Formats: sequence, structure tokens, C-alpha cells
Amino acid sequence: MNMYDRDALVRERYGEASVEANLSAVLDPLFLQHRSVRAYRDTPLPEGTIESLVAAAQSASTSSNLQAWSVVSVESAETRSRLSELAGGQKHVASAPVQLVWLADLSRLHQAAADQGISAEGVDYLEVFLVSVIDAAIAAQSAALAAESLDLGLVYIGGLRNHPEEVAELLGLPDRCFAVFGMCIGYPDETKPAHIKPRLPQAAVWHREKYDAAGLAEHVEAYDLESLRFYQSQNMDRKQWSIHSGNRVRGPESLNGRDRLAEALNRLGFPLR
Amino acid sequence: MNMYDRDALVRERYGEASVEANLSAVLDPLFLQHRSVRAYRDTPLPEGTIESLVAAAQSASTSSNLQAWSVVSVESAETRSRLSELAGGQKHVASAPVQLVWLADLSRLHQAAADQGISAEGVDYLEVFLVSVIDAAIAAQSAALAAESLDLGLVYIGGLRNHPEEVAELLGLPDRCFAVFGMCIGYPDETKPAHIKPRLPQAAVWHREKYDAAGLAEHVEAYDLESLRFYQSQNMDRKQWSIHSGNRVRGPESLNGRDRLAEALNRLGFPLR
Repeated sequence: MNMYDRDALVRERYGEASVEANLSAVLDPLFLQHRSVRAYRDTPLPEGTIESLVAAAQSASTSSNLQAWSVVSVESAETRSRLSELAGGQKHVASAPVQLVWLADLSRLHQAAADQGISAEGVDYLEVFLVSVIDAAIAAQSAALAAESLDLGLVYIGGLRNHPEEVAELLGLPDRCFAVFGMCIGYPDETKPAHIKPRLPQAAVWHREKYDAAGLAEHVEAYDLESLRFYQSQNMDRKQWSIHSGNRVRGPESLNGRDRLAEALNRLGFPLR
Repeated sequence: MNMYDRDALVRERYGEASVEANLSAVLDPLFLQHRSVRAYRDTPLPEGTIESLVAAAQSASTSSNLQAWSVVSVESAETRSRLSELAGGQKHVASAPVQLVWLADLSRLHQAAADQGISAEGVDYLEVFLVSVIDAAIAAQSAALAAESLDLGLVYIGGLRNHPEEVAELLGLPDRCFAVFGMCIGYPDETKPAHIKPRLPQAAVWHREKYDAAGLAEHVEAYDLESLRFYQSQNMDRKQWSIHSGNRVRGPESLNGRDRLAEALNRLGFPLR
């Protein structure tokens, strides 16, 4: 499926700090190769590609088979350009040939129920909203891996949540439908290669039997060093992970307008009871 | 990666109603083969398996590299049995050799920030909670596909959200940490094979350029018939999809206690501002 070197991928993912070399001895390298791609070639996607990605997405698990998600594929340059602005001026949203906008969609379920005389008030609850967000994320990630298996590159665009109502209007979304994130899709521009980003050591995210925060400070310290090594290698002027990430969630003012997401969702038809 | 017949998988997924045969001409069948497995063999997982699944999960996209998720792997029979009860008595939770509990985890980020003198009040907002839920779902789905590529079976367990506080206590979760769903993992018991569930036609979930609900009633009608055919073939006594699904979200009383999820999350340290 992929011609990557598995051991090299594991080293890139966990850096110097962490991992036994035999960790992924049997795993297809596809599952280790992800990097966020922000530079794309003009090459259009072969016919049938989006159909394939949607089939992969629909084949993924969905809570109680409710299938509470949808996707809008955007190829129009004008719409991509507008989405790029709404996402905070991310140029790759305009330049990638396809933007997939993944939707938490309770409108279809609500309508299908209504057509059977069922009022479906459950969709007004936070739980069912979460079901639709989780469904969308699971579907999207299956499509993402499918895309990467076809040598395409991608990056998720959470920036669409900066302006949920404007995105909904632009894409003609009905009530009870919310653009959870976008996803740029295209062939990577190999003259501007993307790199694998190191992650926290496994011991920081994986707990056996019970949650154990005992070693956390040590793991974060090791990863902070690893993150600095990575930023340096990329000529990125950025503070270590814990400071950079802490600043991302410092307060409402650091959330790019998303501190009002609950209000926006209410307006889009999600009371979040 | 898989020896499945791609065309046969597409037919099973979309039934009679839908799909051009060439839809997935180039897609690895892995992306089409999913079925929820609820009957497992006793066979333990080979050494290094969970390590591999965690590496796949960590290789997936994460919003702004915040890595706002964790996972608890449960192998203890006693804990699996208790989780099975909390999930509404789902026997496969007790019988699968491994349960992976996927966590929306803002506690690590909050602590790492605090250790740098950053108060990180942003984690109190719905947006950052959603980031952690989405991160967990994306990570989990990469692990799920990785597991299936290793011939393992799985099923997501949303039932853990019936009793979020009890699950948190059982697994020793810190504040700002929430078990989004579980995941049974094990080798499928081939004497009780699971079947591919048909999904809605692509046209019902995939919109080009703009959301278009025009054909919805027709798509749902076709799928309702398909769902009845499937239930019949499985000797399941169940109404068509739109009625069955509508009843799942009929009102607060149909949500298995999850109508109080917002309150439970508040108690677990998520004010959801």
C-alpha cells in the first residue's frame, strides 16, 4: 500500500525520547505516514476519487447506524476562496483542488423521522449532537486514510468553526447541520514537502487498566525538548509544546472567535440540552 | 492488505439501490470491509498489538497538535465486566479480550500549561471540549482501521456514555477527562460471523458544492427498503431505518440516561461555556 520505511516512520513520530523499535513490526506503514499537507499540485483528482472517499467514510462505524453526518465537496474556486477567508485566511484552503466539508447532520434524521410522524426531540440534546460530531469525525478519518492510501495529501481545517453561521449560509446548510471541519485534498507538491510531526511519548497518552498521571511532567518535559528539535529543524520560530499549546487555550481571547461556539450552535438549530 | 472482493463489498454496502460498479476501482478493500464484531475468540492479541494501535492513533491528525485525547486499555476481566454493566449490559464488552476506552482529555493540556504558569481557561469552552472529542474520534478510527488491517475485529461502545461519572471513577480519570466511547478489540469468532450493514445511498450523504436536500425522501425510501431486506436476511425483527432511527431519538426518555450528559460533563470538569 505504501513504500515507506516503517522503522524510520516510528523514529520520526516519537523522536529520540521514546520507542522500542519493534513496536509496529506488523503494521502497514500507511498508519504511520500521516503528515499535514498544505502545499498542493494543480493536478486534478482522478475520476471516481471522491466517490471512493465517500464509500470509505460510509463504511466506517456510525452510532446505532444513525449516519448522522454528511459531506459537501467543494471544487468551485470561488467557494474555496471564500472558505479560505472564513477559516482565517488559510491559503491552502483556496489552493487545494478539493475541499471536503464534514457535517454533523441531524437534519436528515430529523426529517426522516418527521416523515414517519416521529417528532424526534432527542436531537435537541447534547448527547445526540455529540453523536453527530463523532460520526462525522470517524467518517472523515476513514476518508483521510483512504485518500492517503491513494497518494493524496490532506489537512483538516478546524478554522471553519471560526464562523459557523457564515459557513452554513455559504454551503446552504439546513437547520440542525453544522460544519465540524473542512479537509483540503490534493496531490502534495513535492517541491514543498511536509514533515512528520513528533508526538508525545506513548506512555503519556496510553494508560493500562487505569489512568495514571504519575509520569506526566517527565513525559511532557521530554516532548518539549523533542518539539524544540523539530521546530528548529523546520526553521520554525516557536516555543516548546507545553507553552505553545497552553497559549492556544489561554483564554476566550485565544480561541479565534470560537468562544461563542455554543451560541452559534444554538442559532444553527442545536439547543444542546 | 486484505483479500476481500472489492465489488462484492460495494454491493453489500449499498445494496440494490445505488452504486456504479467502478466507484472504488482503485481503493484498498480494507476501507470497505468494516462490520461491527460482537463475538470474539479467546485468542489473546499478539505482543505489540496495542502499541501498534496507539502508534496509529497518535499518527492521526490532531487539532493544532494539542493531542487532547488519551486511551485506557482494559484487559482485567473484572473491569471489563463492570464496564459491560455500565454500558447497558453489552456482553461483548465483557467477552472481548481488550477494551480500549477513548478519552477526551483536557487534563494533560491543562496541567502542562499550569506547569508553565499558564491558566488555560480556554479549556472551559465548548469549542475546546469539541476539539478533544474530535481528536479522540479521529485517533480511535485510525486505530480501528489499523486493527482491522491486522485481522482483528471491533465495535465501538457508545454505551459508556450512559454512566459517564461511574466510568470516570472506575478508570481513575482526572478532572477534565471524559470517556467518549469504548472499543471492543479481538479476533472475530468465525462461527458467528458479522455482516456488512448497508448504508444510505451516496447521494443522501454527499453534496456537491452546496447542500441539497431535494432528493432526500426518495433516498430514504429506497434505503428503508434496503434496511428491511437486510434485517430480514439477518432474522432481525426490526422496523425500517427511518422508524427505527427516529425512535432512537424520539425524546429524552429514549436516550438511555444520556439526556443528562451536559450535567455529567459539568461534574467531570467541563463547564462547556
